[in-house]
Amino acid sequence: MITAKARAVDGPDKPFRVAEIKRRNLDAKDVLIEIKYAGICHSDIHTAHGEWGQVNYPLVPGHEIAGIVTAVGPNTTKYKVGDRVGVGCMVDSCGECENCQKGEEQYCLKGNIPTYAGVDKYGEPTQGGYSTHIVVSEDFVVTIPDAIELDVAAPLLCAGITTYSPLNHWGAGSGRKVAVVGMGGLGHMAVQISHAMGAEVTVLSQTLNKQEDGLQLGADHYYATNDSETFKKLARTFDLIINTVSANINMDAYFSLLTLDGTLVNVGAPGEPLSLNVMSLIGHRRSFAGSLIGGIRETQEMLDFCAAHNIAPKIEVVSADQIDEAYQRVLASDVKYRFVIDISTM
Amino acid sequence: MITAKARAVDGPDKPFRVAEIKRRNLDAKDVLIEIKYAGICHSDIHTAHGEWGQVNYPLVPGHEIAGIVTAVGPNTTKYKVGDRVGVGCMVDSCGECENCQKGEEQYCLKGNIPTYAGVDKYGEPTQGGYSTHIVVSEDFVVTIPDAIELDVAAPLLCAGITTYSPLNHWGAGSGRKVAVVGMGGLGHMAVQISHAMGAEVTVLSQTLNKQEDGLQLGADHYYATNDSETFKKLARTFDLIINTVSANINMDAYFSLLTLDGTLVNVGAPGEPLSLNVMSLIGHRRSFAGSLIGGIRETQEMLDFCAAHNIAPKIEVVSADQIDEAYQRVLASDVKYRFVIDISTM
Repeated sequence: MITAKARAVDGPDKPFRVAEIKRRNLDAKDVLIEIKYAGICHSDIHTAHGEWGQVNYPLVPGHEIAGIVTAVGPNTTKYKVGDRVGVGCMVDSCGECENCQKGEEQYCLKGNIPTYAGVDKYGEPTQGGYSTHIVVSEDFVVTIPDAIELDVAAPLLCAGITTYSPLNHWGAGSGRKVAVVGMGGLGHMAVQISHAMGAEVTVLSQTLNKQEDGLQLGADHYYATNDSETFKKLARTFDLIINTVSANINMDAYFSLLTLDGTLVNVGAPGEPLSLNVMSLIGHRRSFAGSLIGGIRETQEMLDFCAAHNIAPKIEVVSADQIDEAYQRVLASDVKYRFVIDISTM
Repeated sequence: MITAKARAVDGPDKPFRVAEIKRRNLDAKDVLIEIKYAGICHSDIHTAHGEWGQVNYPLVPGHEIAGIVTAVGPNTTKYKVGDRVGVGCMVDSCGECENCQKGEEQYCLKGNIPTYAGVDKYGEPTQGGYSTHIVVSEDFVVTIPDAIELDVAAPLLCAGITTYSPLNHWGAGSGRKVAVVGMGGLGHMAVQISHAMGAEVTVLSQTLNKQEDGLQLGADHYYATNDSETFKKLARTFDLIINTVSANINMDAYFSLLTLDGTLVNVGAPGEPLSLNVMSLIGHRRSFAGSLIGGIRETQEMLDFCAAHNIAPKIEVVSADQIDEAYQRVLASDVKYRFVIDISTM
């Protein structure tokens, strides 16, 4: 077994503490990664706080992982010691179902194995990236292009792919009008990616507070949703809306912004069921869809796309001792736009 | 002005009475149709009862109209006296917006003019097909192929196109698994059309009462939704679900039947907002969509398709005096599967 230093929580209301965790010895196709940076995702907070179902504590969150390969199993073919690599929200899947065969491992019919708070193929709990090392099958590892620094690479593994995948799937290209709801960790990635794909991009944020950033990142337009004129002015405008807000917003108001055959895609989910008027969809043959991260092949494609288009999240690097404080600031929306833990401070 | 005999209601709780209504003199591109048959759609009942917003009574419902052209305006090019024709849910639209230009007049950005309970371009209330004659712009008239009798043609103008359009748009062809929720006027059309398109068709009805009819109409499978095993057995099965039920059903249960990238399309809308858990969509990149009748070109395509594939609704012909009774029976789900009024009894 391999020992790693980590930061763990022992319960929903507990602070992070120093921990030592075990990583499995390398299987034939495993790689050992020395983690350099780990992003802080809102999902980490929900899970650590026990808001997404029962958790077996102690828990080490973190599914935005960037690091360096320091050892490889005997049958690995994709990676070698020294490679710059990333790991995202999942570390395994059945590999055999029709969705895995399509390269959509996130939709594995047997359930993908999440990077933390899951159970691996040996029956052991998975532990995430707030730690110095992780062992992962090479099939769930991606290459971080040289053009992307490891600190900004980390958030791409969740915030990047979560927005890239629906933009790619629903075709946010030239001639398409795309709106991004929410200008946070996910939203500020969606703006950059859809702009690079060639779409005309509009940010719909509660206020105009982050307008300057939005325009600088590639948005063509920026509107405040606390101004009711916005919904009148933009009625039936967008081919695609990416909703990054997990709160229970007025869906019908947002559907009214879609043009004929337009689609609104939720990449997050409110904890409570939401309500909608079906006539909002019927009136212009609109669709309401959901999308979950992306497959491994698409995650690599996203990283290569970001490297080619000079896309990176705006981050604030924190030390391991600052995780609790960072959580508080995320909950207060006081982050532009992603916290990343410097694992060397672990 | 042209005088027509009709049946009208004077208020939400009033019975139908004999009425005389005026039809406009023929415009240059109008046709006068002697109506032979008019279907009774559930929408007629909602509207007559004032359940879909305020109505200017007296009201003559009916938007499933089949008849014969008996006069034409001087500039008509599409129809001549004696032609067998139909009129559906709309009689006009702006003709200029991008949706009209695409042939999707039902989604006219200025609002299509409904066949009844609307206001026409002269500011006059529109009155529907429970009458002996109607005057309609030839652009909103379709040809009923000789292979289709006029009585069974009538319901195709709403029930037919409402199901054909989403089946066509979302591609219910060979190799696709399609489920039809509800085995009523719309559902029994969706079964026939999706079967003829080459899909593997499953009916999801509350009970097995209509199973024999469903299988005879082309369904490959038939399941009762009051059996909870149905939802377990059919989990992640369908590429496309057409929901013809307007009641507020458990949407999450139906979403769970969709495969990766599957779509559930509502062609009716419950009066109240409905509730759903977004995770039901996110889990397998599913979509929830709505669809409204179809455009004029597509309505003609549907009629030609039905003629080519020998598709027709199962109907029960009633006299003009039986409309109130027929409404009661529709509300009691006591109809297999569509009432059609014989207008010669008017």
